[in-house]
Amino acid sequence: MSDSNRPLLVAPGPVEIPEVALKAFGSDIIHHRTPEFTKSLVSARKLLKKTINTDREVYMFCSTGSGAMEAAVVNFLNPGEQSLVVVSGKFGQRWADMLKIYGANVDLILLENGDSLSLDQLQDKLKSKQYHSVFCQMCETSTGAYHPVEQMGPLIKEHQKDCLFIVDGITGLLTKELDLEACKIDVMIAGSQKAFMLPSGMSFLWMSELAEKKCEIATCPRYYWDLRKEKKAIQKDQTAFSSAVNLVFALEAALKYILEKGLDQHFAEIRWRANTCREMLKALGLQVLAKNPAPALTAICMPENIDGKVLRQKIEDDCRIVFMGGQDELSGKIIRIGHIGDLSREEYLHALKTFASEYMSFTGAYTDDQQQQILSGIIS
Amino acid sequence: MSDSNRPLLVAPGPVEIPEVALKAFGSDIIHHRTPEFTKSLVSARKLLKKTINTDREVYMFCSTGSGAMEAAVVNFLNPGEQSLVVVSGKFGQRWADMLKIYGANVDLILLENGDSLSLDQLQDKLKSKQYHSVFCQMCETSTGAYHPVEQMGPLIKEHQKDCLFIVDGITGLLTKELDLEACKIDVMIAGSQKAFMLPSGMSFLWMSELAEKKCEIATCPRYYWDLRKEKKAIQKDQTAFSSAVNLVFALEAALKYILEKGLDQHFAEIRWRANTCREMLKALGLQVLAKNPAPALTAICMPENIDGKVLRQKIEDDCRIVFMGGQDELSGKIIRIGHIGDLSREEYLHALKTFASEYMSFTGAYTDDQQQQILSGIIS
Repeated sequence: MSDSNRPLLVAPGPVEIPEVALKAFGSDIIHHRTPEFTKSLVSARKLLKKTINTDREVYMFCSTGSGAMEAAVVNFLNPGEQSLVVVSGKFGQRWADMLKIYGANVDLILLENGDSLSLDQLQDKLKSKQYHSVFCQMCETSTGAYHPVEQMGPLIKEHQKDCLFIVDGITGLLTKELDLEACKIDVMIAGSQKAFMLPSGMSFLWMSELAEKKCEIATCPRYYWDLRKEKKAIQKDQTAFSSAVNLVFALEAALKYILEKGLDQHFAEIRWRANTCREMLKALGLQVLAKNPAPALTAICMPENIDGKVLRQKIEDDCRIVFMGGQDELSGKIIRIGHIGDLSREEYLHALKTFASEYMSFTGAYTDDQQQQILSGIIS
Repeated sequence: MSDSNRPLLVAPGPVEIPEVALKAFGSDIIHHRTPEFTKSLVSARKLLKKTINTDREVYMFCSTGSGAMEAAVVNFLNPGEQSLVVVSGKFGQRWADMLKIYGANVDLILLENGDSLSLDQLQDKLKSKQYHSVFCQMCETSTGAYHPVEQMGPLIKEHQKDCLFIVDGITGLLTKELDLEACKIDVMIAGSQKAFMLPSGMSFLWMSELAEKKCEIATCPRYYWDLRKEKKAIQKDQTAFSSAVNLVFALEAALKYILEKGLDQHFAEIRWRANTCREMLKALGLQVLAKNPAPALTAICMPENIDGKVLRQKIEDDCRIVFMGGQDELSGKIIRIGHIGDLSREEYLHALKTFASEYMSFTGAYTDDQQQQILSGIIS
């Protein structure tokens, strides 16, 4: 953070960006059809495969994460096909909305806010009907719920071997170790401004061999998102459309930064933040919304008499720390604390301590002794 | 240019970026749902309207220009409708390809490379059949040809008043004065990395009242590009999806920079570059590909014995100036010199002089006297 008045980002994305990536992002412009850029693009693609531990190609789009969601629909869908969608919040609903728009018949597994999918629910559906595709979030960002993607893929394939398993990993990918092929995932998408620690504006898509075959013959209309076009460009070490040059530079820098620290260390740090945050909430007597919370964030239920929106804004204004509130019907009812991004332990503990201290003074329900005890618990 | 070894960009985009915009682009990340960002977003939107001289909204997408092209198709098309497309190069062909993919019946006005549309050709088509939409480039970037968009709109409306006139202004908008409403344009799109002098990654769309009405009821599937969704977000001073935060900062800075200098001055500079470039070509005995060349760029025909690709690469390697070559079947046959971006007259003349000098020594067909004469003609 070079600007000391700028708020610290402790949200589920965008997140704090490593200095090296920010520098690369702000570097002078060069043309995307030059050998200099090609070198960076090829290097970034190689690092990307290494970071998510795959030999298969990782596709990049110049778009936000929702663009990659649309790409994951239009590249694999034949209108009229049957899809199953896990809806556990705003982003699950987005899959369902998109699929309907593009002509899929959609069955939902509709979950309460904070719930994660149970494998029994999935199995029941898979036994009842033939599906062409199953759509799910790895982590539902609006509630912080983690879905068991590691077990879902094998279960889907056991019942319906040609059914595609399509996962939105926008706030999930790179927050914990994951073997895409072992998990029998067919399509995984991600966004730059999350665990990749980059500015918004780039999204990613990985596909299995099965998905790639289906992509070749899918009948949904597509142009900007057409992976077949992008595949041809990759073979020439280019992007199909103009490249987001500086984002590619930043991607290269951020991935180098992550790999140099080590993936184990990267995941361990996110785990440490999540645990420390949840310990604090326990001490405060606050409840986590998600029953099986994701590594990337914790959504905290506000007691009925507390307006989370007012508290969050107060913390932002007075203490210059940006957490996030709830979206749509969860507005005011939850506060979301992120565990991703380039933050030191000291910065992270400062953020948690600030939250606890502001929360306690906002409610007025804690004695001085309790306050001291809770705060010293966080620092130690 | 802070890096002295970085090539000077004299291409039809990406282009040289003003220092203030580059600085804003590389500034520290903040969250896109904060009052700080909202302030910048609202300001950028206001400046954008002022810059392209409109009271109507200008929509932004996080995408390259081709994304805005797709948005201009899917928001206004009912599959099965009849479209007319002016194809005078690679980007006209892109309109045709997209439209076919999304289910339009497409008639083409197919022009030779370098040709611009004649109003008679258009009139003949409009008399022969009812069209739902006419698609055209303002400037066909692959050949440098300018189409008479100022006269096309009135002609289209005279014959078919409900027919939409949809213009790709990616390399055209903001290179000359243009009154969108007077030109009876219904949809105009643009891209950040062209005359807006920004990095790649953002695109723009403007629509008329008629287009907005059609957008509400069009039946093409759309989600990421859905302007109705974006309209609702604008009413809340937000973007529908995550905002490309730093690009919005840079947009605000670049537009302020342009407006402070003055739009007249901005256009005059582009005109001066185009004229100076074309004078030089005349002195060299070289032919411009476009019969009616656009303000943004000049495509130069290479004599048969000269490989433009080799010459262009040589200039890039030896002299660190990036012009562009030809695309697809024009590869090697043309070199394209851009007239947009943040360049001083000194830098621009240096680029032209370098081109002339390298070209002359490459061909070996000019006497010392001729060389001196031509070079001194450029400098004066």
